Amino acid sequence: MAKEPEQIFQPFTARHLEALRKLVGADRVLADDDANGAEALETYSHDFTEDLRFKPSVAVLARSAEEVSKVLAFATRERIPVTPRGAGTGLSGAALPVRGGIVLSLGKMNRILEIDTDNLMAVVEPGVITEVLQNAVAEKGLFYPPDPASRGSCMLGGNLSHCAGGPRAVKYGVTKDYVYGVEAVLPTGEIVRHGGKLLKNSTGYNLTQLLIGSEGTLAVITKIFLKLIPMPTRKSLVLAPFDSLEKPAAAVAALFQAGLTPSACEYMEREALEAGCRQTSEPNPFPNATAMLLLEVDGFSDAEIDRQLETLSTVLERFGAADMALADSPERAERLWRIRRSIGEAVKTRAVYKEEDTVVPRFVLPELLKRVKSICAEYGVASVCYGHAGDGNLHVNLLKENLSDDAWNSELPKCITRIFEAVRDLGGTVSGEHGVGYVQRRYLPIVYGPAELALMRAIKRAFDPAGILNPDKTLP
Amino acid sequence: MAKEPEQIFQPFTARHLEALRKLVGADRVLADDDANGAEALETYSHDFTEDLRFKPSVAVLARSAEEVSKVLAFATRERIPVTPRGAGTGLSGAALPVRGGIVLSLGKMNRILEIDTDNLMAVVEPGVITEVLQNAVAEKGLFYPPDPASRGSCMLGGNLSHCAGGPRAVKYGVTKDYVYGVEAVLPTGEIVRHGGKLLKNSTGYNLTQLLIGSEGTLAVITKIFLKLIPMPTRKSLVLAPFDSLEKPAAAVAALFQAGLTPSACEYMEREALEAGCRQTSEPNPFPNATAMLLLEVDGFSDAEIDRQLETLSTVLERFGAADMALADSPERAERLWRIRRSIGEAVKTRAVYKEEDTVVPRFVLPELLKRVKSICAEYGVASVCYGHAGDGNLHVNLLKENLSDDAWNSELPKCITRIFEAVRDLGGTVSGEHGVGYVQRRYLPIVYGPAELALMRAIKRAFDPAGILNPDKTLP
Repeated sequence: MAKEPEQIFQPFTARHLEALRKLVGADRVLADDDANGAEALETYSHDFTEDLRFKPSVAVLARSAEEVSKVLAFATRERIPVTPRGAGTGLSGAALPVRGGIVLSLGKMNRILEIDTDNLMAVVEPGVITEVLQNAVAEKGLFYPPDPASRGSCMLGGNLSHCAGGPRAVKYGVTKDYVYGVEAVLPTGEIVRHGGKLLKNSTGYNLTQLLIGSEGTLAVITKIFLKLIPMPTRKSLVLAPFDSLEKPAAAVAALFQAGLTPSACEYMEREALEAGCRQTSEPNPFPNATAMLLLEVDGFSDAEIDRQLETLSTVLERFGAADMALADSPERAERLWRIRRSIGEAVKTRAVYKEEDTVVPRFVLPELLKRVKSICAEYGVASVCYGHAGDGNLHVNLLKENLSDDAWNSELPKCITRIFEAVRDLGGTVSGEHGVGYVQRRYLPIVYGPAELALMRAIKRAFDPAGILNPDKTLP
Repeated sequence: MAKEPEQIFQPFTARHLEALRKLVGADRVLADDDANGAEALETYSHDFTEDLRFKPSVAVLARSAEEVSKVLAFATRERIPVTPRGAGTGLSGAALPVRGGIVLSLGKMNRILEIDTDNLMAVVEPGVITEVLQNAVAEKGLFYPPDPASRGSCMLGGNLSHCAGGPRAVKYGVTKDYVYGVEAVLPTGEIVRHGGKLLKNSTGYNLTQLLIGSEGTLAVITKIFLKLIPMPTRKSLVLAPFDSLEKPAAAVAALFQAGLTPSACEYMEREALEAGCRQTSEPNPFPNATAMLLLEVDGFSDAEIDRQLETLSTVLERFGAADMALADSPERAERLWRIRRSIGEAVKTRAVYKEEDTVVPRFVLPELLKRVKSICAEYGVASVCYGHAGDGNLHVNLLKENLSDDAWNSELPKCITRIFEAVRDLGGTVSGEHGVGYVQRRYLPIVYGPAELALMRAIKRAFDPAGILNPDKTLP
């Protein structure tokens, strides 16, 4: 297929600014012409991705699908790039306005429209914070499982954009497994609806699933239908030490084969646990272990928990992890979780870093880890690895440490390319839950050939003929 | 957007036949020029959808993705329509070669390529029969849950095409929830791959999920990666009688709210149970009940089953269904399941019929049932309803019975339109698990507006610019 022509955008002018203010109201359009606006544009020029900054010309705070529609139709007509934005907690730069133009914030569309306890469905706007929904449904004995580490600040619209996961995915699945319908606005301004409070749907193409993970490049999601499930009433947490990098993965496979599906199954190499302990000032319970699994089981009765802990202990013993630590109180469990959750922060405060979100078939995770270590050694790059063993999702943190700026800038892309090639060779891909966004695009040809990329570009054109929506994202 | 131009196909000639035989080998190309071929074309001219028949010019039995690629590239070049076909058990006519041309059978691509017990994934070709896979993985203590009624003869490729469901969907989800990767051939002949043995994947557009439910209109799936889960070791089945049409749905909502997720939750109105009993010569256990729920629970220990049965019994009692019958042996359970599974057949041997596959939010299923009965009464059409209460998926069987041919032909489409309008008004859609295919296309504008339909057409064009793949399916 033909190579994509370079997108031609129009410069954003005072006329555009005035037109936008007429379209949606002056109070919802922020620009450099006052102090508040200037501050907002500064905020919207970055997200949680490294230290990247791109300043937009203007920010629009949408209140409704109709406003989103007006803004997008205007942008398509005028050839102005639009970057949709939720909480800006993304790690792949999908919310960065790399071509300037309009940042379209969905943060004010933050209403939980309905928690339907008869159908076990929630209907929400995209700006609802993940944890806010989780708490609201928990009050009704219900459970929305996806729990990205940023759940206290990230928004559900962003969760959909990247198909967010988190530790519970191993038992409960990821964001896509809970979304049963969306309302979304096409770049042309048309509002489309698909699905709803429907657990089965074989009626036309699955627009809902296509939009999940599309990082705001195809449409702007303005309403979301989410499945809820009963909240488990019991859970128990175990930390298991291993004397090799391979045994945890073998143990995970054996757990599933024994009929156990843990509700979390987190992997930490020694350095990761140490970093988490340092960060939280907690003692390291297993200073001599080579690798660790943090395993949670949940259920609805003590008998169910006991059955699972028994299976767990029998299986782990076979892999030399008899000496596991059971968190025997919610407080103790929370302390272990705090260690696990603070690893990312601990690693990132320590040095200039780049985080990769590799995913492979879960049984080959130790092999990936070995290859990562060996590749990093070649390039003189330090690394700390941890992640979701149950999903084969390994977060690889590459650290600059003592490397010179020149060495870091020249060697890092080569090192990452080699890591992704190893990931591909093991049957894996570039991102498990963080997305491709802006910063991983260049690595996509490692895992997709020309046919897949051309097809994805054709899908993009079908949604966004003018190419105004979140340009330079997802596709290389 | 512009109206779709009428597709122009070339007539299939002797030259085409010869070319196809050269492409894939004469033994794999069946045509009218010998007795075997003529018989095959007769078989491929219909599926399980009513009594519809459309004869193809030729059938190609593919053995590999490369052969599929050659056939599709040829068909695109020559503008010959291609209808992919699995077992032909579909109920929406998606496998009918309505424009003649080539039937592309995937039935010979029936290898289970791998059952990976380390990663709990199966890799299969599209022609594997659903039950064959289920049995093969069960031997390893593993479980592939989707179980359409035709599981003994339908093929996994067809299951993907329609996003097949079945009774277990209420706890375990539908086909889309188990597919983590595909290899597929585009109409242009290009082979694309997406996903794999990967439980998380946020890398580019989700081609896998877009292909599921697309009924062979976008690409031909040639390899499938399926998630497996541990096989529950215990289950128990209960038949619960209710004295109203509404109470079963309220009871289902209450069960979920009480923390119970049944592994099956089937609804039968009185006439449906009676039909099933007649068909199987079983006595009707509850001749005076107005409606029935068939409820299954499963798990990994007796304690887990007991806890669930206790919850079940407490909740059902609140809805007047204290008198429930527990199937206290696998044989007794199998007899109840046989009654349930034979309803479809029982209804269809009784009369000329049309089956609709409505789906609504599960709590409004009784309201849908009442509206269906009232609409049918207006048009003098008899109906028998049953289905998956846990999913709000109601199979509505409309029966000709004493209606004249003229009345049946003129009134039925009006009656169906009214039923789908009621479905839409209740937040539902046209098909839960049977698909749109050929026979439901005309009803799609009831649930989708011009924007959704134009977008779906644009997606179709992105995959199939020449429009040769399964024309006149899915979209009106």
